Amino acid sequence: MDYAPRYLDPPFRITRTSHVCLTVRDLDTSVAFYETLAGLVVTARDEATAWLRGIEEVAHHCLVLRRSDEVPSCDAIGFRVERETDLDAAAAHFGGAAERVERVGQGPTLLVSHPSGIRFELVAGMQVQPRILTDYPAHKGARALRLDHLQVIVPDVSATGTSFLDMGFRAAEVIADRAQGRFNGMFLHRKNNPHDLVLALGQGPRLHHFAVVVPDLQAMFRAADIAASLGMGEKVERGPGRHGPGNGSFVYVRDPDGHRIELIMPPMQVIDAEEPTRVWDAADKGRIVPWGGPASNRWREEATPFSGVPLSAEGALARWVAD
Amino acid sequence: MDYAPRYLDPPFRITRTSHVCLTVRDLDTSVAFYETLAGLVVTARDEATAWLRGIEEVAHHCLVLRRSDEVPSCDAIGFRVERETDLDAAAAHFGGAAERVERVGQGPTLLVSHPSGIRFELVAGMQVQPRILTDYPAHKGARALRLDHLQVIVPDVSATGTSFLDMGFRAAEVIADRAQGRFNGMFLHRKNNPHDLVLALGQGPRLHHFAVVVPDLQAMFRAADIAASLGMGEKVERGPGRHGPGNGSFVYVRDPDGHRIELIMPPMQVIDAEEPTRVWDAADKGRIVPWGGPASNRWREEATPFSGVPLSAEGALARWVAD
Amino acid sequence: MDYAPRYLDPPFRITRTSHVCLTVRDLDTSVAFYETLAGLVVTARDEATAWLRGIEEVAHHCLVLRRSDEVPSCDAIGFRVERETDLDAAAAHFGGAAERVERVGQGPTLLVSHPSGIRFELVAGMQVQPRILTDYPAHKGARALRLDHLQVIVPDVSATGTSFLDMGFRAAEVIADRAQGRFNGMFLHRKNNPHDLVLALGQGPRLHHFAVVVPDLQAMFRAADIAASLGMGEKVERGPGRHGPGNGSFVYVRDPDGHRIELIMPPMQVIDAEEPTRVWDAADKGRIVPWGGPASNRWREEATPFSGVPLSAEGALARWVAD
Amino acid sequence: MDYAPRYLDPPFRITRTSHVCLTVRDLDTSVAFYETLAGLVVTARDEATAWLRGIEEVAHHCLVLRRSDEVPSCDAIGFRVERETDLDAAAAHFGGAAERVERVGQGPTLLVSHPSGIRFELVAGMQVQPRILTDYPAHKGARALRLDHLQVIVPDVSATGTSFLDMGFRAAEVIADRAQGRFNGMFLHRKNNPHDLVLALGQGPRLHHFAVVVPDLQAMFRAADIAASLGMGEKVERGPGRHGPGNGSFVYVRDPDGHRIELIMPPMQVIDAEEPTRVWDAADKGRIVPWGGPASNRWREEATPFSGVPLSAEGALARWVAD
Repeated sequence: MDYAPRYLDPPFRITRTSHVCLTVRDLDTSVAFYETLAGLVVTARDEATAWLRGIEEVAHHCLVLRRSDEVPSCDAIGFRVERETDLDAAAAHFGGAAERVERVGQGPTLLVSHPSGIRFELVAGMQVQPRILTDYPAHKGARALRLDHLQVIVPDVSATGTSFLDMGFRAAEVIADRAQGRFNGMFLHRKNNPHDLVLALGQGPRLHHFAVVVPDLQAMFRAADIAASLGMGEKVERGPGRHGPGNGSFVYVRDPDGHRIELIMPPMQVIDAEEPTRVWDAADKGRIVPWGGPASNRWREEATPFSGVPLSAEGALARWVAD
Repeated sequence: MDYAPRYLDPPFRITRTSHVCLTVRDLDTSVAFYETLAGLVVTARDEATAWLRGIEEVAHHCLVLRRSDEVPSCDAIGFRVERETDLDAAAAHFGGAAERVERVGQGPTLLVSHPSGIRFELVAGMQVQPRILTDYPAHKGARALRLDHLQVIVPDVSATGTSFLDMGFRAAEVIADRAQGRFNGMFLHRKNNPHDLVLALGQGPRLHHFAVVVPDLQAMFRAADIAASLGMGEKVERGPGRHGPGNGSFVYVRDPDGHRIELIMPPMQVIDAEEPTRVWDAADKGRIVPWGGPASNRWREEATPFSGVPLSAEGALARWVAD
Repeated sequence: MDYAPRYLDPPFRITRTSHVCLTVRDLDTSVAFYETLAGLVVTARDEATAWLRGIEEVAHHCLVLRRSDEVPSCDAIGFRVERETDLDAAAAHFGGAAERVERVGQGPTLLVSHPSGIRFELVAGMQVQPRILTDYPAHKGARALRLDHLQVIVPDVSATGTSFLDMGFRAAEVIADRAQGRFNGMFLHRKNNPHDLVLALGQGPRLHHFAVVVPDLQAMFRAADIAASLGMGEKVERGPGRHGPGNGSFVYVRDPDGHRIELIMPPMQVIDAEEPTRVWDAADKGRIVPWGGPASNRWREEATPFSGVPLSAEGALARWVAD
Repeated sequence: MDYAPRYLDPPFRITRTSHVCLTVRDLDTSVAFYETLAGLVVTARDEATAWLRGIEEVAHHCLVLRRSDEVPSCDAIGFRVERETDLDAAAAHFGGAAERVERVGQGPTLLVSHPSGIRFELVAGMQVQPRILTDYPAHKGARALRLDHLQVIVPDVSATGTSFLDMGFRAAEVIADRAQGRFNGMFLHRKNNPHDLVLALGQGPRLHHFAVVVPDLQAMFRAADIAASLGMGEKVERGPGRHGPGNGSFVYVRDPDGHRIELIMPPMQVIDAEEPTRVWDAADKGRIVPWGGPASNRWREEATPFSGVPLSAEGALARWVAD
């Protein structure tokens, strides 16, 4: 299989994962959680919505929280493109599934309703904000630097993955279930590390988690310790620990609405075109989870639906990492 | 209850936890484990025995590994006393339960067979070895600095604990099961931190673990990563995580014979006589395990017997931390 | 020379360094500095005085700041004793040089005007405060855990040192200038690490610095980064770096009045009576300062006088570490 | 000034800094230095040359050491391009200044003799090597992950910088000396962080340093500590400390031939096209060096010449950071 069919010649040039939009039931509570525990900062806020970014980011936001009484859900995920002409190319690529929209803090934006049910925005630029990286006294919690990647559960990783490969993504790593003849996981990237979008097998589409980079292990521990201070110790769902794929370090925490945030260390660099895709054998669980034991059922089975998107296919439960 | 009846006027002056003596089935394998993963260094070695110490220690050893084909067990644990006259006072204290013995690398030594079945040595001095703390290129694994404490499971924490309080220990913290009217855990210390000897409730006496101090979280992660490199990832039994009592950080790893080592960060200082004993409510599990969830059955139920010491009482299973 | 003549049989039992009392010209500014940069917390405050402690401490204070328009100075340093009867023994030891005094937050206290000009308090107990170690969201700056040691410059290290050895201190390490036949430095300790009181050669008596323990290197960097955020980058006087003696890590910062605080990592354990005193050769500068180069003149020559105590002797400038 | 005239439409697509080629007088000594202190690993070695890479890298090498009795010098620096056709475009771009060459471990390579005197190779692919990131027991020293950037001193930053901007680089940050009407520094990047090539003002062209990424502050300290263990403590030339530009952490060490290596933490992400270039005022030294004081003359003035390239212009001494 060609894991990077259009990586060097993409139909439009996505540069990185951009943002994620979630609904929450109590905006104050959710903003406090992301400020106090993760260390994200609020760029803007109105009655119904808050826009947050990492302390290293100049982009207007990487996280949008919208108040809603409905079941907590994901309104959309987002990717950045190099420039506005990429949106024209993308509109042509997606045809009727794409439409121009306006979003606070964002430049030209194209909303895509992907056949998988994943709803994503392509964004050509955001309002520039001050990088508060050197305002050290103001830093809180885990000092979240920036958004890194998103993981979405889909019932058919091959089909959905192929569509993203056609957009120019490369699969840095995959988890292959040879017995079933399918992929349990696919780590798709455009920027210089192993993942912008991770696809995992299961009933979907659902957002499994979004991952922010924190500076060090101390920050990961501090997030867990703060969760306990806030009476949310049981929301520390998994880790701190180590993934096999990407050699990633992690701690997963559930927010007040059950959305899952992963805190990670700065990932390795993956950039050279000749680097081969790493293929993990789904049966080789000892390498996929090198230590720390399997994830809980809660971690594997619970996820955030996309707002108003039916779970269009019944697939196997997500088990790419920890079965 | 008086948690420090003889702390300031001990019958003999224990200064700290000194060492632990374990039997192992394959000496080369065990030495390699403690060198490569924990970073302990070998002070001396003969065909049947190896003596190891931490990179910060000038004492001859904190860990003695003796080759044996029997069920892996603990020959003895050890405490240091200030000087040889303390041994005379201790001999008087224990009467027929104590005898002078000779041990490689140790100065005057008194072996005590405690009524609880715990066998311990009191040692007045050890051969001085070079502190290799600044030989940085030689450091390995988690760079274990020194032995910190031992945890022993006993069927009656109150009775055994009282006997150790009478030796001059102070209970820095206890876990009280008010419903059962008993202690599930008692953190006894002589040196300036919360624990030299931790007693936990269960069938015993059995050594639950010995704990070594490592410099930082990075070292704790590195130990787990090395375990995975060595094909021993599943031996990383618990953590990295956080204890409530002592606010201790931890990662637990099982050695090739199943003995359990805990790697911890430098503990807090507990030294002032007026500091009150902290009493934890056994029912308050959310504080005792602030995050990371309950320990596995394996962690709670498996432990190392003392060599030739019958499990003299059937108590409740150990559950002081994580039921 | 006997570096521990009364370590095991002290005339009264000092347990550790307790506190330091400084005068400052602007109390608000100084409190903000120690809260924001070091992470100390305020236990009590009135118009003229603030009492601060580390986040790990249950003692009422380790730092007392008294507002004064005079030249910034050190009112006193302090040591803890085991119990009140130690004060009686100390009073007998010092004769007319000692008097009982009352201090906010302190139990029975004896003020000693030492022949060297050093003024110190011996304290039997302090008011117990909550340990805020687990109130993670409230932690600031370098998260200072506790006071560790004090360094005082005196014109005759041997004479002053001998007097402190007679109080029961042990010299864990000394720096010997063999050419001059004198000591340039002496690291005196009672608690389980290399230093409670460090004596350094120079015009004195003057307080060179007080040292607080922080959790990790990240905290040391964070203190320096916060100093820069506050426009006080040039107050980061030395480090982060490494001392030879004690293998200590350090960063030194000057407070708004020029008092010097050292942030250090948790020191090594020094506890066994048989451990020999380490003698450093003052000429072996490459070992005393293993890397990072010599300290600046500012670091070597500037220090805080004791309030109202004349610099009673003209000695050589302090050069025990870095000449 | 346009700091990114061809960033989105480069004449050929450089992806990142690739490697640096140095001459050394004793190959064994130099290899031992980079293995033991930095933690680089040897991919290949013959009598005259060694090729090393970081533990995270799959590329054949990032550092080439060639034995020579001449004055230690830099044979070339290198950049990666996306694919071989980029070399054709580059050859057209540079005309007679470029020629195809063959290099061990490298795919198609174009050698460019730049008008500034900088000699660099453009490389389309390297032999793929195993990523040894998870072979934890084999890691040494600072565990260098990968090459990050190079700093070259040139007598005219504007002229040389403009030429590199024309190749598609973007200036993430610049240091402008408004009084002199010139740039003292220019941070040029193609990959997703602030620097692939830093130009600094001074007599040149000379390689000031090459920078490798290490995982954490602990690794930076460990490198310095290992230098001291090896009797090379005085080779730790500057830091650990903090740069203003890029908010970079650093420690600089000189190798046995005087070449300078910088160890840094993973840099911030700089990727979005709308992010403005940060312009630093050369007079604002307190921001450019936020704490830790000015660099030594040695750090500012000493550098590695390019092999056989005359210092073609007498410029001001390098002073972009620390004057």
